[in-house]
Order: sequence, then C-alpha cells, then structure tokens
Amino acid sequence: MDVSFQPTHNAAVRVVSRADGIPTPEVFAVTRGPIPSCPEGGLLIRVIVAAVDPAMRGWVSRERNYLTVEDGAVMRAEAIGEIIESRRSGWGVGETVFGVFGWQQYAAVMPSDVYWKIDVEVAPAPVWLGTLGFNGLTAWFGLLHFGRPKRGETLVVSTAAGAVGSVVAGLAREVGLRSVGLTRGADKLRRCRETLGYSEAIDYNAPGLDSALASACPRGVDIFYDNTAGPIADAVFPLLNQGARVVQCGSVSVPNWRDVPQGPRRERDMIVKRLSWHGFVITDHRDSFPEALAHLKRLFVAGILDAETDILEGLDCAPGALQYLYAGRNRGRLCIKP
Amino acid sequence: MDVSFQPTHNAAVRVVSRADGIPTPEVFAVTRGPIPSCPEGGLLIRVIVAAVDPAMRGWVSRERNYLTVEDGAVMRAEAIGEIIESRRSGWGVGETVFGVFGWQQYAAVMPSDVYWKIDVEVAPAPVWLGTLGFNGLTAWFGLLHFGRPKRGETLVVSTAAGAVGSVVAGLAREVGLRSVGLTRGADKLRRCRETLGYSEAIDYNAPGLDSALASACPRGVDIFYDNTAGPIADAVFPLLNQGARVVQCGSVSVPNWRDVPQGPRRERDMIVKRLSWHGFVITDHRDSFPEALAHLKRLFVAGILDAETDILEGLDCAPGALQYLYAGRNRGRLCIKP
Repeated sequence: MDVSFQPTHNAAVRVVSRADGIPTPEVFAVTRGPIPSCPEGGLLIRVIVAAVDPAMRGWVSRERNYLTVEDGAVMRAEAIGEIIESRRSGWGVGETVFGVFGWQQYAAVMPSDVYWKIDVEVAPAPVWLGTLGFNGLTAWFGLLHFGRPKRGETLVVSTAAGAVGSVVAGLAREVGLRSVGLTRGADKLRRCRETLGYSEAIDYNAPGLDSALASACPRGVDIFYDNTAGPIADAVFPLLNQGARVVQCGSVSVPNWRDVPQGPRRERDMIVKRLSWHGFVITDHRDSFPEALAHLKRLFVAGILDAETDILEGLDCAPGALQYLYAGRNRGRLCIKP
Repeated sequence: MDVSFQPTHNAAVRVVSRADGIPTPEVFAVTRGPIPSCPEGGLLIRVIVAAVDPAMRGWVSRERNYLTVEDGAVMRAEAIGEIIESRRSGWGVGETVFGVFGWQQYAAVMPSDVYWKIDVEVAPAPVWLGTLGFNGLTAWFGLLHFGRPKRGETLVVSTAAGAVGSVVAGLAREVGLRSVGLTRGADKLRRCRETLGYSEAIDYNAPGLDSALASACPRGVDIFYDNTAGPIADAVFPLLNQGARVVQCGSVSVPNWRDVPQGPRRERDMIVKRLSWHGFVITDHRDSFPEALAHLKRLFVAGILDAETDILEGLDCAPGALQYLYAGRNRGRLCIKP
C-alpha cells in the first residue's frame, strides 16, 4: 500500500443470485461503500490477496452445501491481509494474517475470523493462500492420512496441475511414489512433467484415456487422489489394485449435483478390491495443521514444493473468476488482488 | 454316522458351466464316485454340514472374481466335518473341524484346508458355519472395525435377517446402537423385531421405503452395513449423517456385474458428508479371528446372538440352493447336509 494514499471507499463483491452449476458473472455484483470501521475488540484488515476456490461453487449454489453465502453478503473468501488498525491486544498493526476476509479491499473482522499469522519472509503472500494454506493442508492430509502411501506405490491425481494437485505431486515425490497426473493441454502437461515432477502426465481430454492410463500404471493404482469425479474417475477405478485407497477431495467435473448424475455402481469394486474410499473437508482436521504446516514449510524452503500463483488484478475480475477457474485456464493457485 | 454302515461311494456336486447372474441348477451336476483315500500327510473328512453362501455366485460366474471354481471341480464350500482317517499327527480321528471341504460327502484334504477345530459342546455343527463361523466374523469385523460404532448411534443393516445381518443385530444391541433392519416379508420382519432385537424393521419391498426409513432414523444414519447395494443403498445414502461409515459387505441385490449397473454418483456425498466407505473380504483379516471368535462365543453362550439355521437335506438340493438363497426363502444360515 502506498502510505501516502488515503483510501476513501471499499470495493466488495457481493452475491446477488444463486448459481446453477458453475457460477456465472451474473451471480455476483461489485459494489462500493465506505471503508468499515474497526470493531470493538476486532481488527481492520487491508486485503492483500484473496483466493478463488472450486469450493465457492457450492457456497453460492442453490443446492444443499456444507456452507452457504447468502444473497446480499460479501462473497466469502480466504485471503491474506495486513492489519491496519487493531483494537485487540496480541494483534499488531503491520502484521500479516491469513483468514476469511472476503472478496473485498477492506475487512472489519474479529480475531475468530483469522486463522493464523503468516511470515512473508518464508514465502510471499499468495503462497500462503495455496501451497502453505488450505490447498497444501488438503494435499498433505488427504495423501498422507487417507492415502496411507508406501514407497513404490502408484498414485493417480486428477486436476494434477491445480493448487492441491501440485502439492500432492511434491509430497508424492518425497514419499517415493510413482505418480501419474491427469490434466489437459500442452502447457499443463509440461508443467506436470517438468516442474511438478510427476512420473507421467496424461491429457484426459485426448482420445484413448483408458489405454494411456493403463500404460502409465503398469502395476495398477494404489492411491487415487480424486478432485474431479465423473468420467475421469470411471477411467481410474478399473485400474485400482486390491487394497487401494480413494481420496475424494473434489468433484469439479460434475457441473451440478441438483439432479445427481448416474455413474457405474462401485459396490462390487469396493468388495472385490477391498477399497477404502474417504471424503473429507480439511477444516475438520485442525489438530493436524501445526504438524502439516511445519512439514510443508520445510519442503517449500527446500524447493521441493511448487507454488505457482495466477493472480487476477482487481475485483472487477472476480465475478468471472470461477468460470475462468472451472475452464481450467489458470496456472497454479488462482487469486485476486482486490 | 452309523458306525455299522460302510460307505461305498462319494456323492459330490460339480460345476459344469459358468453362471450369468444367480446360478441356476444347470450350473451344477451331482456326480457319484469312489470315496477318496486319505492322502499322505492329510486327512479324510466325512462332511457333516456344508454352507450355501451368497459369495458362491461370484465363484461360478463368468465375471472376474477374487476366487473362481473351475468347470469340472467339486463346488467349493465351507463345511463342518469329522476326521475319519488321519495321516498327520495333531489331527485325531473323531475330531470335528471347520474347513473348505466342498459340496460332497467325503473330502480328502490337507491340514491347510482346515481352518480350525471346533467344539460341538459349545454349539451344534451348523452354528459353526454361521454365527460362530465366517458370517459371525464378517459381522464382527465389519461392524466393529470399519463401522466404529458408538453407543447411541443409528445403524441400518440390509438383508437384516440373513446369516451376517442377524449377528450384526446382536452386536449392535450389545454396543447400544439404535438398529434398523431392512428385510422382506412378514416372517422376517417379525424375526428382526422379536428374535434379533432390531429397534425397527422395514420391508424394503413395501411402498414408501424412503419415508419408512426416514421415520425409523429420526437422527439420520451413522453406520450403514450394506449387504445389498442397488436401490436399497440408494434409499439409505440420503440419510447418512456427517462422518457416517458405509461398510460394504455384499451386493446381493445386483443380479450381475458383467455390465456394471448405473446408480447415483456418490462423490458429492463422500465429500459433503465426509463419508468413509470400506469394502472387505473377511479372510484378509485372520489376525482378528481369535479375538472375534472368543467374543462371539461369549455372546452366543450368553444367549445374545441368534443362530437360526436352515438345513437342506441331501446333495440333490444343492444345485437349486443358490436360487433358494437369492430368493430370500431361507430363514437363518443356509446349509446342506450332504
């Protein structure tokens, strides 16, 4: 922030209608209002960078979801911000914090809205929204806790080059897994192979997905870290080995769940292959965060984890950001600089 | 066995063709041959009672399965038998044993075909094929290990009055679960409520399954012990609570898996409800058998576990036994007295 600049208003993105499927720009409106004042016992935050997440689709959808942003409210978003006013001891002006500050320029929050303080000496602010934020924690917990990886096993990751997938790839390399990434387009395939360190990368949109997967996984699949569901999952299931683990982290390939889509029944595979299938939401697992973050920081500093970020400039980009994300146009963790 | 009767031949049921779906009598043929001689280092067994199991469908099907009985071979079956000749120290004539002896009157086996010796003072022979055999072990391991039950939770069991379900019901009562059994027909409903001790029993063939389930599970479902898959599972999934466990023990409602049937995709439920879904085959978990069997025996002797058996007389009943089983006509553990 230019300290000589005295801000006069707060721009914010509000939810104005419910989404069916992938949220279109009409779901949101950019509004301008006064800068909020710092609440009694709270903090005033200048938002440095805010996240754009696949999970946001659920927050604004018409369907039942674990979390909903009501019409008229500022769009919920994780963000990194600087404390510019504090009315709470223990929280100092100038400190950088990670929390739920929304798609807006200024946020008046209580300390309960803040997850934790971050250290911009370890990594720049956007990295704390991704590799060292919930994406990294999600990758860490899903792969290490539910995936129970053992050196030499084969892992398949869908949305392999995404914010979570790219961290899964780094962790897989550290454990010593054979990792196969599913993504699309020449750029991301190259990124998977050259930057993220997948053993193999496959374009799931190219013809012959089944045979490409089969030849990339000559010893079958022991762990399927699934962010997509749908036909991509259907291509992986037949390759699962006895005792394989399926980690259900996302379901981005399914445009809407109001009319639950049909797919092949899994019950027989569950039994014959003795599968374990786990769905999870990372915020249930706070007890693991200190251990996970310490591990992720160590790997990031050692250069083992990639942390590419794709930053949209200005809140006017926000209403179209989820379409951009679901179209797979971002490279690395997608954020908005408000 | 009448000791004055000198047997002259061995009747056996052989597999003569592959089954599509539920095996019809034509899949099997009853053959007669000489009584086998006791092998070097082995045992000659007189079969007292042999099991009829849902899993047998997979053993004779055209589809890939974890276990196959080839054409021409004696049908594989667990059985209780008496050692009538022994050429191995540690195994005495007159001892009663549990093992894989097949649908036949006499079996020449090696000790590796025997699971363990049984004690007919604790329970009659057929009970050792069910409640105190793999059915009981399956119920025990599935419910207690994968189901992770806690007092006061709600359990739904499909094929509630079957050989596994009836033991699940007893264990559920001991843990202090609210248990809801799905079965069909007035007899089995009564058996579920009066003998097995389910809190509620529902006829899954009656109209209004969804609303009957909803009112039987006012606090949702924490554990789904599923033996059926298919539409019955589809009725239970919407009631699953956050953190619920699905134990996939069988899939008897699906007549064949060669063309995998379609069903509602589960990925969204997996995530939003943080589900754990486990498939298993009990023979993978031998390490738990001593603890499980000791526990089951204690509960059986205390009268807490039901052990009804339905015994078909003579091997001529065997070819039609799987149709009888899949039609749900048996009451309790189905066996054949060869």
